[in-house]
Amino acid sequence: MTEPTRTTGDRIVATYELHDPGRSPEALAAAIALEQTVEVPQALAEAAGLPPGVVGEIERIDRGAAGAARAVLSYDPAVVEAGGVPALVNLVFGNVSMMPGVRLVDLAFPDRVLATFDGPRHGVAGVRALTGVYGRPLLATALKPRGVPVARLVEMAGAFARGGGDVLKDDQNLIDGFEAFKDRVKRCADAVDDANQRTGRRCLYLPHVTGPLPSLARRFEYVARLGLPGVLACPFIAGLGTARSLARDHDLVLMAHPAFSGGHFVSRREGIEHGLLFGTLLRIAGADVAVFPNTGGRFEFGRKDCASIAARLRAPLGRLPPAWPCPAGGMGFGQLPGMCADYGPDAVLLIGGALIGHGEDLEASTRSFLDVVRANSAERLEPPRPLPGPPADARAPRVLAHRPGFEWNGRPSSAYKDARDLAEGLAFKGVRRVELVGRFGEPTRTDLRYFEIEPGGYSSLEKHLHTHIVIGARGRGVLVLGNRRETLAPMDVACIGPLEAHQLRNESSEPFGFFCIVDHDRDRPVAP
Amino acid sequence: MTEPTRTTGDRIVATYELHDPGRSPEALAAAIALEQTVEVPQALAEAAGLPPGVVGEIERIDRGAAGAARAVLSYDPAVVEAGGVPALVNLVFGNVSMMPGVRLVDLAFPDRVLATFDGPRHGVAGVRALTGVYGRPLLATALKPRGVPVARLVEMAGAFARGGGDVLKDDQNLIDGFEAFKDRVKRCADAVDDANQRTGRRCLYLPHVTGPLPSLARRFEYVARLGLPGVLACPFIAGLGTARSLARDHDLVLMAHPAFSGGHFVSRREGIEHGLLFGTLLRIAGADVAVFPNTGGRFEFGRKDCASIAARLRAPLGRLPPAWPCPAGGMGFGQLPGMCADYGPDAVLLIGGALIGHGEDLEASTRSFLDVVRANSAERLEPPRPLPGPPADARAPRVLAHRPGFEWNGRPSSAYKDARDLAEGLAFKGVRRVELVGRFGEPTRTDLRYFEIEPGGYSSLEKHLHTHIVIGARGRGVLVLGNRRETLAPMDVACIGPLEAHQLRNESSEPFGFFCIVDHDRDRPVAP
Repeated sequence: MTEPTRTTGDRIVATYELHDPGRSPEALAAAIALEQTVEVPQALAEAAGLPPGVVGEIERIDRGAAGAARAVLSYDPAVVEAGGVPALVNLVFGNVSMMPGVRLVDLAFPDRVLATFDGPRHGVAGVRALTGVYGRPLLATALKPRGVPVARLVEMAGAFARGGGDVLKDDQNLIDGFEAFKDRVKRCADAVDDANQRTGRRCLYLPHVTGPLPSLARRFEYVARLGLPGVLACPFIAGLGTARSLARDHDLVLMAHPAFSGGHFVSRREGIEHGLLFGTLLRIAGADVAVFPNTGGRFEFGRKDCASIAARLRAPLGRLPPAWPCPAGGMGFGQLPGMCADYGPDAVLLIGGALIGHGEDLEASTRSFLDVVRANSAERLEPPRPLPGPPADARAPRVLAHRPGFEWNGRPSSAYKDARDLAEGLAFKGVRRVELVGRFGEPTRTDLRYFEIEPGGYSSLEKHLHTHIVIGARGRGVLVLGNRRETLAPMDVACIGPLEAHQLRNESSEPFGFFCIVDHDRDRPVAP
Repeated sequence: MTEPTRTTGDRIVATYELHDPGRSPEALAAAIALEQTVEVPQALAEAAGLPPGVVGEIERIDRGAAGAARAVLSYDPAVVEAGGVPALVNLVFGNVSMMPGVRLVDLAFPDRVLATFDGPRHGVAGVRALTGVYGRPLLATALKPRGVPVARLVEMAGAFARGGGDVLKDDQNLIDGFEAFKDRVKRCADAVDDANQRTGRRCLYLPHVTGPLPSLARRFEYVARLGLPGVLACPFIAGLGTARSLARDHDLVLMAHPAFSGGHFVSRREGIEHGLLFGTLLRIAGADVAVFPNTGGRFEFGRKDCASIAARLRAPLGRLPPAWPCPAGGMGFGQLPGMCADYGPDAVLLIGGALIGHGEDLEASTRSFLDVVRANSAERLEPPRPLPGPPADARAPRVLAHRPGFEWNGRPSSAYKDARDLAEGLAFKGVRRVELVGRFGEPTRTDLRYFEIEPGGYSSLEKHLHTHIVIGARGRGVLVLGNRRETLAPMDVACIGPLEAHQLRNESSEPFGFFCIVDHDRDRPVAP
C-alpha cells in the first residue's frame, strides 16, 4: 500500500512516480528538488547561503515491491501564495514535465495555502440551486455539429430545454467572430429562456468562450450580461489561471472542457495522474464542472482513472466546495444506468451525438434519456434559485444629481487617503474626495471620483502604474508633472501617464475641484 | 521518404503519426477527421446536410515501409480566422491530444490563414537591432537562484551587463507579489541600465511575468512602462493566446519558457513533434525567442529534435519573421563551441547555473564565455537601436485647454457616426463629437469624448456591451434608459450599463453638452 500524500508542516507536498530506469530514485528525486525551485547545481545552491526550505526537500522515497518508485518532495509555498494557480503549476510540474519517466501523482497543501485558492465559485450545491434539481445526475448535451445553420442550433436549444434537459453547452468546435458570437448566443439563450418559461424549470445554457485576449474576456462578459449562468471554456488552451479569473469576475459557472489536455496524461509514465489533473488541479483552478472522457467511450480512460477524478472533485480540500464530474466522450442511451451507478447523483452526464441522433424529435429524445436517469436515481425538484437577474446598478438611481457646492445625492465626501498612505510618505493637505462611480457595484472598468482641494492644499506627490484622466470642474489649480507645472481650469482636460510623478495643488484663494478617471483595478501609489 | 505537408487549396493541413496498433490507419484517420470538427458520428454528420468541407478530410495516408503510418488531414480554416491561436490549437489537436498513439507532426497553412497570425513582434532582426550585435549568437543568462536577497540579484544583473552579456532573464522560479515584483524589477532594471551606460552597449533585461489575470496583464504593463524591452513568460501555463496578446499590446519582446510543456512531447508516440511545438506553434503564438532544452543537457532532447526546432523557427512562414532558438537546460562553458556550430549565429545561448557558478566574478565569467562565442563566430557591432523611450504621450501637450464654446486646443470636432452606422439603423440628429483622450496614443484603457447635441437633436438609440459614464457639462438634456427618462444638468453624473438601450436627447432651446467615458477597446453599438 502507498501512503497518502500529507502535508509536512507548512509546505506543499508533491508525490512523483519514477519510471526512469537510467537513474536511481534518489538521484532523480534530488534532481527534481533542485529543478523545481532554484534550478542550479547542488554545490551552487549551498554556496548561495539560501534560507532553509527554499530548495525542495525529499521527504521520503517509497520503493514499491512491484511497480515504480515514488518520491515525496516538499516545497516552500511562498511562490504559490504570490502567483496563484500558474505559480502552483510551475512549482510542482513546470520543468519536471519535460523529464521522461516522471509522473506527478499526488499533491497536498497546508491550510494556509488552500485558503489562497478560490476554487469553484458555484460547485455542486450552487449548480443544484440554479437548476432546482436534486437527488439525481444532471443531463447535459452539446449544441452541434458545427456547420448547421444558427436557426437549427436555436431549434435544438429550445427542444432540449423543453424536454427537461438540465445543462446545454456549446460544442467546443463552435467558434465564430465576436459579432456572430453575440448573435448566435443571444438567439440560443432566448430559445432556452422561452422553453424555461414554459416548463417552469431551468435549463442552464453555457456558451463556449475562446479566443486570444482581449476577445476572450469580452466573451465572458457578454455571456454574463445576457444573464446566462455560465460558460464552457478550455482551460488547457486558455491557461489554467486565465479561465478561472474571467469566470470569477462575472460570477459564472465554469464548465471546463479537456481540449489540449491529452499530453498531460496520455503517456502513463509521464504527465499527471488523471484524478490529480481533472479533479484536484481543475477544481483549484475554479472549474465547477470538469468534463472528461468516460471509460468505455471514444478515449481510453479506465474505470480507475474516472473513479479517481470523481473522488478528487468531491474530496475535502480546504474550504473549496466539491465540483461536478462530467463523464463524456461517446456515451449513449445504453450507458446511462451504468453511469448513474458509477457516479451517483452528483454528476453531470454529457451525451452529445447519441442524444442528438436518437431520433427526429430532440424534445422527445431528451425525455426518454431523462426517464432512464430518473429510473436510476431519486429525483426531487425544487424551484430553481432566482438568477441574479439584472445587476444591482439597473435598479439603483441612475443619475447622480449635482447639488450646489459640488455635492452629489447619495455620494458623501470621504477621506482623501488613510493612515497607511501617510505612513508610506504620501503627505497631503486639505483634500476632499467624493466617490461617484465604481465603488457601488456598477459594472464598469472605470472609477469616477471628484476631488476638491482647499486654498493652500495639495494632493500627495506620487506615482503609479495606472493612469489618470482629469477634468477641471471648479476654480483653478496647478498640475505638477515631474518638473513641469500646468494650470488646470474648468473643462480643461489632462492625462497623467504611467509611473509619472504628479501632484495637484491649489495656489489660489478659491476651492479647486476636478473629476478624476482611473481604472477600477489598479496598483497602489508610491512616493516617487 | 515522407512528403512534406503542403496546403490543399485553402485548407489547413495537419499530418498525424499513428502509433495505435489496435486500429487501422484508415479508421483512425476517419475518427480524427470527425473528432476535430463536428464531433458526431459519420451518419449524423451526413444527415445534418453540412456544407462541403466542414468535416475534416483525409487527404492521404502514407504507410512507411518501417515505422508508423502517417495520415494527412485537411480542415476548414474558418474557426482559426475567427478564434486565432486558441482556435488553431483546438482544431488541430484539441480532442485528439487525448487519443493514445496519435502524434501531430506537421502543419501547413494557406496564405490567407497565415496572414491572420501576428507571429513574432520583433523576431531575429528586431532583437538584433535592439542589441546592436550581429554575426554571432547572443549570450543569455538567468537571474537566480530564488531565495537570495534582491540586492544579490541586482549585483548579478549589473555584473552580467557590464561583462557584455546580451540577454538577462529572470529565472521562471522568481515569483513574487505585485508590489515586490515592481520593486525587484525596477532595481534590476536600473542596474542593467547603469551598466549599459558604462559599456555603451545594450543588455536586454527580461523580467518573468506570471500570475492569474488581471495580475498577469498588470505585470506586462509595468515592464513596458519601465521602458524595458521584453519579458520572459510561460505560454504553456499562461495560455498560448494570452501571453502573445499581452506582449503585443505593449510591443515587448516575448521570450517563451517551456515550463509545463513536457506533456506535449515527452511521449514520442503522442503529443506534438518538438519542432512543430517549439518552432511553429510558439512562433505563431508570438514568441520572439523560444527557450528549449538543448541536447546533451538535463533533458532528453535529441540532436534531431533541436535541429527541427531551429529549422522551424527560421523557415519561411507567410509574413512571419524568423524567431530565435534558445537552447538551454544545463549548458556549460565546454559546450559553447558546439552550440555555435550547431545553431549558427542566429541563436540565443542560455547558460544559467554554469555561468553563475563559473567563479566569484560574474563580470569576468561573462567576458570569458563571450570570448568563446566570439572565437566561434564573426561578431560585428553596431549602435543599438534607440529604445522607444518614454511613450509619445509624455512629450505631447499634457493639458488640453478648454476654449469658450466647448472647444479644446488640438482636438477638432468630428462626425458623430458614419455611413455604416446609419445603414445599420442607428439614426441621429445634430450631434457634434470631440475626441479628447484615447485616440492619440495615450496609454489609458479609457477614452474621453465630449458630445454636444443641438436643440431638437438626439443621439442614436442603441445598446452595446461596454458601459458609459456620462457627466453633464453644458445645458440640459434627457437621458432615455429603456422606458425611463432622466434629466441631465451640468455636473450631474450618469452610468449606463451593459446592453441597456439608451439615447440622449436635447428637448431644450440651448445646446446640450456632456462628457462620455468608455473603454478604449469596445464592441460596436447595435439597434436595440
